[in-house]
Amino acid sequence: MTGHSFDVLGIGNAIMDILARTDDDFLVREGLAKGSMRLIDTEEAERLYSHMGPARMVSGGCAGNTMAGVASFGGKAAFIGKVAADELGRAYGHDIRAIGVHFDTPVLEAGAPTARSMILVTPDGERTMNTYLGACTHLTPDDIDPEVVGAAGITYLEGYLWDPQAAKEAFRVAAGIAHARGRLVALTLSDSFCVDRYRPEFLDLIRSGTVDIVFANAAEVRSLYQTADFGTALAGLRQDAKLAAVTLSEAGSLVVTREETVQVDAHPVETVADTTGAGDLYAAGFLFGLARGYDMETCARFGGLAAAEIISHLGARPEADLADLARQSGLLR
Amino acid sequence: MTGHSFDVLGIGNAIMDILARTDDDFLVREGLAKGSMRLIDTEEAERLYSHMGPARMVSGGCAGNTMAGVASFGGKAAFIGKVAADELGRAYGHDIRAIGVHFDTPVLEAGAPTARSMILVTPDGERTMNTYLGACTHLTPDDIDPEVVGAAGITYLEGYLWDPQAAKEAFRVAAGIAHARGRLVALTLSDSFCVDRYRPEFLDLIRSGTVDIVFANAAEVRSLYQTADFGTALAGLRQDAKLAAVTLSEAGSLVVTREETVQVDAHPVETVADTTGAGDLYAAGFLFGLARGYDMETCARFGGLAAAEIISHLGARPEADLADLARQSGLLR
Repeated sequence: MTGHSFDVLGIGNAIMDILARTDDDFLVREGLAKGSMRLIDTEEAERLYSHMGPARMVSGGCAGNTMAGVASFGGKAAFIGKVAADELGRAYGHDIRAIGVHFDTPVLEAGAPTARSMILVTPDGERTMNTYLGACTHLTPDDIDPEVVGAAGITYLEGYLWDPQAAKEAFRVAAGIAHARGRLVALTLSDSFCVDRYRPEFLDLIRSGTVDIVFANAAEVRSLYQTADFGTALAGLRQDAKLAAVTLSEAGSLVVTREETVQVDAHPVETVADTTGAGDLYAAGFLFGLARGYDMETCARFGGLAAAEIISHLGARPEADLADLARQSGLLR
Repeated sequence: MTGHSFDVLGIGNAIMDILARTDDDFLVREGLAKGSMRLIDTEEAERLYSHMGPARMVSGGCAGNTMAGVASFGGKAAFIGKVAADELGRAYGHDIRAIGVHFDTPVLEAGAPTARSMILVTPDGERTMNTYLGACTHLTPDDIDPEVVGAAGITYLEGYLWDPQAAKEAFRVAAGIAHARGRLVALTLSDSFCVDRYRPEFLDLIRSGTVDIVFANAAEVRSLYQTADFGTALAGLRQDAKLAAVTLSEAGSLVVTREETVQVDAHPVETVADTTGAGDLYAAGFLFGLARGYDMETCARFGGLAAAEIISHLGARPEADLADLARQSGLLR
């Protein structure tokens, strides 16, 4: 791994999504909280799979989706994540490489299958995720290639990495290498339940400067500061983070530093088909812009553009060429 | 396997579809004939997969899609097809059972992976299929459960079964059992290239009475009788087949016997998203109607209704409840 240089390196759980349509009654019968992500073990994965309807399989995972977005903007992206030597792992590797993302994390030869998330889509477009982490629990500091981290302008880490035990250490090692090479480290809080699980650790990562940039939505920021008042939470984040980008759904996004706040409207969308991946793709646009030296407002516009594309169709990876869309919008030349 | 009774048993290649969007240039570079289905070996499968874009995986296969349609109408369906003991095979089995289709063909433990078809979708909605038959080549007469065949009003066989060598024999065995039990045997010609490969054998199956009912589209009928003139071809089919249902895209369908011809208009469709599976789903509706004792015209209307549903969205398995749609159209009470 020499001679490369990357705009962004994403490190996250490499997960195949197993998507099935369902109705609200099914969620009730299974005792599932709509819209949540829960972690499940092998037995529960087997049980739920045997109850759910016919499904389709597509590559997913937050950081993986984000890297797909960076690549679609024409950015140079790399990904580190653990898949197993099985068909789902092979498909995951194929999909991410096929979009031009550098991916050479050693494949897990035995011990666990590739991670999968059984995603139940209700008629209202909401998704309820049931994630079996499998091979992701085997991501360790050994998987963090210092050459790749050093070659990336920004290393982007997903909060969900806090779930598999060994990945926390990999996360810290990657952040250490990035900073030693004078690079930036970004963190997405992933979801408000994830923040609930790891609040003190996430606050410590931000306050200690282990991460430079924080991505979050309003619910995650409120959860981080344990307040129902968004203004209070935002003030906390402004104090703690060097740079934060907060997504506000149809209200656009806010970019905050200690000194300033930039508000950017949402990119217009004709019809919202599926909101999954909106945050991941916002991060993709923002990170692409940041790596390429654009100002905060333009970074936020790149983010909004990518989020608008992703929510206009089913699925969390771009179907249109984001660089083309950015050129049409006058954001890229 | 006792105590069951089925409206229709489908026997076919159990194939996972690996769908990727592509452009026409890619087809040209790869030397692929747009709209065709070709059989490929392991090496070609590896090579093509490494060149194609990110994909999604869904269960497919003609007879499998048809059984999914029969089940969606509320019919009792069974399926016989060979998958391997791998993740794709497991997904295939899950998907078909999850829609209520009886499926207990012994899984292939070793020797070949589950079949997959790499389907390249061009911007015009056309699909170019590259099929690696894998485990399907191991379907043998031993997989034909006489109890299941005997318990099904109609046994439906796909022409593609003529591709894997051992499946031909399984096909003949199934037809023999069905007739010995006083059941009906149906055949779909699958595609015009398939007819080109096996014309004499297909004509023999029809003329010898090994099959009672033939499903075909206009191109397949013309190919079967090697004529560009549809009228001539149809006259041949009327002479040879006891009963034939011929689909004519937007012109609806024709049901022909030696004595009569029934013409039924196409079911209205707002927008055609993807024509794949139209023939498979037409067969589903027709077979459901036939098994339930409806007249020819109503059978054709069930077929048209199912075909209209399938072409209104991407993918070859129903997304709506066909029984509901049939009730709304006044076809079912």
